[in-house]
Amino acid sequence: MQFLDVINFSFPLLASTPETADSSMVLAAVLLSLVVIYFASKVGGELSNRIGLPPVLGELVGGVVVGVSVLHLLVFPEGGADSSSSLIMVFLQTTAGLTPEAAPQVFAAQSEVISVLSELGVIILLFEIGLESNLKDLMAVGIQATIVAVVGVVVPFAAGTVGLMTLFGIGAVPAIFAGAALTATSIGITSKVLAEIGKLNSKEGQIILGAAVIDDVLGIIVLAVVASLAKDGAVDVGKVIYLIISATAFLLGAIVLGNVFNKTFVAIANQLKTRGELVIPAFIFAFVMAYLAAIIQLEAILGAFAAGLVLEETDKRKELQKQVIPVADLMVPIFFVTVGAKTDLGVLNPAIPSNREGLIMAIFLITVAIIGKVITGLSVFGQPQINRLAIGVGMIPRGEVGLVFAGVGAASGVLSKSLGAAIIMMVILTTFLAPPLLRFVFPDSQKVATDSEQLIQD
Amino acid sequence: MQFLDVINFSFPLLASTPETADSSMVLAAVLLSLVVIYFASKVGGELSNRIGLPPVLGELVGGVVVGVSVLHLLVFPEGGADSSSSLIMVFLQTTAGLTPEAAPQVFAAQSEVISVLSELGVIILLFEIGLESNLKDLMAVGIQATIVAVVGVVVPFAAGTVGLMTLFGIGAVPAIFAGAALTATSIGITSKVLAEIGKLNSKEGQIILGAAVIDDVLGIIVLAVVASLAKDGAVDVGKVIYLIISATAFLLGAIVLGNVFNKTFVAIANQLKTRGELVIPAFIFAFVMAYLAAIIQLEAILGAFAAGLVLEETDKRKELQKQVIPVADLMVPIFFVTVGAKTDLGVLNPAIPSNREGLIMAIFLITVAIIGKVITGLSVFGQPQINRLAIGVGMIPRGEVGLVFAGVGAASGVLSKSLGAAIIMMVILTTFLAPPLLRFVFPDSQKVATDSEQLIQD
Repeated sequence: MQFLDVINFSFPLLASTPETADSSMVLAAVLLSLVVIYFASKVGGELSNRIGLPPVLGELVGGVVVGVSVLHLLVFPEGGADSSSSLIMVFLQTTAGLTPEAAPQVFAAQSEVISVLSELGVIILLFEIGLESNLKDLMAVGIQATIVAVVGVVVPFAAGTVGLMTLFGIGAVPAIFAGAALTATSIGITSKVLAEIGKLNSKEGQIILGAAVIDDVLGIIVLAVVASLAKDGAVDVGKVIYLIISATAFLLGAIVLGNVFNKTFVAIANQLKTRGELVIPAFIFAFVMAYLAAIIQLEAILGAFAAGLVLEETDKRKELQKQVIPVADLMVPIFFVTVGAKTDLGVLNPAIPSNREGLIMAIFLITVAIIGKVITGLSVFGQPQINRLAIGVGMIPRGEVGLVFAGVGAASGVLSKSLGAAIIMMVILTTFLAPPLLRFVFPDSQKVATDSEQLIQD
Repeated sequence: MQFLDVINFSFPLLASTPETADSSMVLAAVLLSLVVIYFASKVGGELSNRIGLPPVLGELVGGVVVGVSVLHLLVFPEGGADSSSSLIMVFLQTTAGLTPEAAPQVFAAQSEVISVLSELGVIILLFEIGLESNLKDLMAVGIQATIVAVVGVVVPFAAGTVGLMTLFGIGAVPAIFAGAALTATSIGITSKVLAEIGKLNSKEGQIILGAAVIDDVLGIIVLAVVASLAKDGAVDVGKVIYLIISATAFLLGAIVLGNVFNKTFVAIANQLKTRGELVIPAFIFAFVMAYLAAIIQLEAILGAFAAGLVLEETDKRKELQKQVIPVADLMVPIFFVTVGAKTDLGVLNPAIPSNREGLIMAIFLITVAIIGKVITGLSVFGQPQINRLAIGVGMIPRGEVGLVFAGVGAASGVLSKSLGAAIIMMVILTTFLAPPLLRFVFPDSQKVATDSEQLIQD
């Protein structure tokens, strides 16, 4: 008893102030949440990698496991959870002497902090993607890849949005959001599988990769537009035009001005002599751009992406990429795990009759996601010998950008629980299906696989 | 007007939920705060470096400039500030369409997030210090340095605490806190100056550095004990003994168990194949240790420091240090700038008569800080030829650990505003004074300076 009394002394780090939550308890809750997030992301990511799937999918599934769907370790008030349903809060009450009266405030503060960290995580993710996207490469992929990319955005978007509105009676804004989530193509997964089957440098492989890169940029513009509509809750054609123009102008403007700012940035970084001489100016730039993009009604991540594109053009590129990697390693999993944790897959449980509609919606989205991209392959022209089916199939996996849509959509509150879960299921399943389908549509891939897999192993 | 209307549309990232602060506004406020923090830290750090002072001092002063003392960009509710006195909130209202009604909630959430980020920053700082402290070196500095370190902790602590209680009638707990802040010695500043005057490898230099390292460890133990007392608000001798024993046991236990866990950690990291294979397990370990230290009533930073010490013993040390650097570069300035921003130096303005007592306290603390360490030099025995005065003077600068005391003390609420400001002034002035004093007490340093400064330049 004596011992337990000592353990149950209230938490000593900082004294509580009356008006806000006890900050030592908030810190303890944040520390525990981060431990849960990192553990889930690493276990999920590693298992996913072992079975040949992208780690990010495992991080998402890890988030689903620790979140509201299964373990209830990491839950958020938006999902209707309160402090008593959070296992972390229960754990704090038993180990750190958190009182039941203080728990709701600590829970709210912890959720706020983890949500902001997760948003900073996706900002850093897009900054890193920008840093790794070479503008000249993007312009060099040619007209063929551009057409494939545009068709690959338009077809699934139109089919998904119209289908949801007409077949399921979903409102315009959530339908557009779900449609937009269908547009992305994951570069990572496709390029990994293409490398494994020795098709990375084939004509098909080059078109797929070029289109996937352009898709990412188009997807980010679409997201910026759609998220802005979500805020208003209604679609106003004038505003859509304003948003599309401003998003495109923002990206192009950033790139043009960036060519001037480039040299200034390098000159500043070269003048600095104290620690962080490169990352601090880079993050100031990224955060300012994120803020600017946000206040002109676009997405913060569009600004971070543009900042990455600009800095990729500098001589400091390689050094900066290297330093951003550990920061991204620590921040990005917070985003993916949080997206998973916030997704209530229980709403798709087929045993409950009222879930049937959500399930049918998920099946519809998955079908559109696959067929929409396969049709896209047919848009390749003037190349009679090319494997068009393979190009379409190569664009099926949605990956990170699809998850960014799901995360932003869920946070915006416009998606119903079942529609949100259906989008997550669509992202997971398209990503699972792509590797075996790709192997299937490249009939001559079998033999090469063993050779090149050797190469990839080390 | 039309244009302004568009700009003033409410912020579009995420729709607001009724019960919590608009999360898009919170994100915007956090982004702006981070831009201000990074800007202040870099300008301050670089200027400080140019005039030969440690960058961390400039980051602190940068924080003072943007904080409650001068510019009011970064203010916190603990200091009695509300949203209308925060320039960042005013800026959000003009640029991002934040409504005055929503401002208090956004302000509270932003302050909460920045405070937690700053606490994570000091946890990562101590983790990094641990990662760079070699246990074997620590044990090898010998009995001479250990005695100097212990005397250097006990004398200023006792003189400061007793002086504040008897001369100024300060309560036991705040007096002990201020006394504890007098114990630290900054390794960084002293070693830099010693290198500049070519005395790093002199007998005096070796004793100073050894003592400074041990001082850091003793200081962290003292802080853990003192912060725990601050929570209760009263001094209970039994509890002090419990805390001293548990803090020491925690550190020693972590080191002993760490020798076993070492190999497990390396084995786990070697098994992992996906990104973050080293930083993620390392941060899981650091955060778990921080949590454990916190719930046995010690400080979270003691756990992070112990985690760093343990991982320093592994083969992954070098690789891990390299990856932690950019993370620390981004997180640690948040702590130092926040400490500066929360410090109201206005309470020491000599023009206001009621401030006189605070000013006299600051002068008293600075005097004790200098004399206490100079006396410490006299404790060196059996070395008739040694420059004892130089050893004492070499231990005067307080640096980072002193600031950690000030930050934790201010957050705990036990320090009055004037006592908190007096501690910050003490840290700043001892750090400013040390380099010229050191040059003065090493009379033969002048000639060497020019030679070795050449070496240090590149």
